[in-house]
Amino acid sequence: MQTPQATAALAAAMDLVGYATYLDRVPLRPGQVRHASDNRVELDRARHALTLAATGREVAVVSSGDPGVFAMASAVFEAVEHGEPAWRALDITVVPGVSAVLAAAARLGAPLGHDFCVLSLSDNLKPFEVVLARLVAAASAGFVIALYNAASRARPWQFGAALDELRPVLPGATPVALATAISRADERVEVATLSNVDPARADMRTLVLIGSAATRRIERDGRAPWLYTPRSHGATT
Amino acid sequence: MQTPQATAALAAAMDLVGYATYLDRVPLRPGQVRHASDNRVELDRARHALTLAATGREVAVVSSGDPGVFAMASAVFEAVEHGEPAWRALDITVVPGVSAVLAAAARLGAPLGHDFCVLSLSDNLKPFEVVLARLVAAASAGFVIALYNAASRARPWQFGAALDELRPVLPGATPVALATAISRADERVEVATLSNVDPARADMRTLVLIGSAATRRIERDGRAPWLYTPRSHGATT
Repeated sequence: MQTPQATAALAAAMDLVGYATYLDRVPLRPGQVRHASDNRVELDRARHALTLAATGREVAVVSSGDPGVFAMASAVFEAVEHGEPAWRALDITVVPGVSAVLAAAARLGAPLGHDFCVLSLSDNLKPFEVVLARLVAAASAGFVIALYNAASRARPWQFGAALDELRPVLPGATPVALATAISRADERVEVATLSNVDPARADMRTLVLIGSAATRRIERDGRAPWLYTPRSHGATT
Repeated sequence: MQTPQATAALAAAMDLVGYATYLDRVPLRPGQVRHASDNRVELDRARHALTLAATGREVAVVSSGDPGVFAMASAVFEAVEHGEPAWRALDITVVPGVSAVLAAAARLGAPLGHDFCVLSLSDNLKPFEVVLARLVAAASAGFVIALYNAASRARPWQFGAALDELRPVLPGATPVALATAISRADERVEVATLSNVDPARADMRTLVLIGSAATRRIERDGRAPWLYTPRSHGATT
């Protein structure tokens, strides 16, 4: 699901900077230098890329999905704001991509056909009370909700707590979909409801989509149901 | 900004169904049949595509951006739900794409680096009070807001009314960006604030991004500022 623009940017770079797992997906090119790091040092990685670029090298910071959505682009601009004044004169191009929320929604049908919110459930970078308050605000206002970072080994209980917080706000029949490892060989899609979803089915590769009261479920013989949210508010057609 | 998957789906189709303006962007292929319509008949267009597919033809419904975000995918599934039972047995694949919100955000920096909402400002399909209530809920909860369908000749005052509704909720210095005709030859990006933005600068090709109180503006000599929203809640680094 890589755009031609992303492919061209990767091919043109002298240096690739990124999380090792993502760098491993980029074809090797002679002469290109790889700077792999682990997944927890976004700001250091961004500063490293900017330092290289300031010496005149063409540098690609590698991300998966869309770099602008809970990914490296924000870290790069945070490093620019607080870094060398000369970094503001660099040519920085963000190449947009198909974010996980769009890839997951496409597999499910059209759950994002009406207003929606995208939020990270991680409490590494914000207090969990803020996460819960945003969830309730979004659900109460009628937004479909997409959750990044729903679960990981280090954060095993937050997704269950988030579902508990939503139960007084949304009908029990509200669809909850878990889309795991979309576009990978072991892709898995599960469609449950707010009443019966098992939060333990989510892992660090899972994108969660929680419907609004308007989201519809189309049953099919022997296949997962389609989900869609009608374009019209209160549509019954 | 077309993915290889979208290019392949367009090439493989026997029939292309879509709004004439979008069909005109698809290269002609011998033997392929085009069914062009105007922009206001999404459900009819969806039924037409499903009727053709039910006869065994391979049909592509053409959309711009991502078909799942305020676009044709939701209309197709709405037609399926209320249409012929046999339509549920069709192989329907939604090919995700780079939605306008992601393309616009990439041009601006990384305004979607933290939690955000996407909503349509159009009151063709929902009451305008619902639109305003969602805007206030999203802004009060700290979401960055992306607006589709901010303005058109038929809806000239709604965007101004939306800004007025947000002024008591967000600081006057909150960045408001108008990204018009992104990826087209006459692309234009303007960055203002909630205090001084001129709603008349938006037209039907404009994607609007309204920052949260956390969204930062990086000034640059002789160029538009970059916008980004830090990954950390309350980050000052």
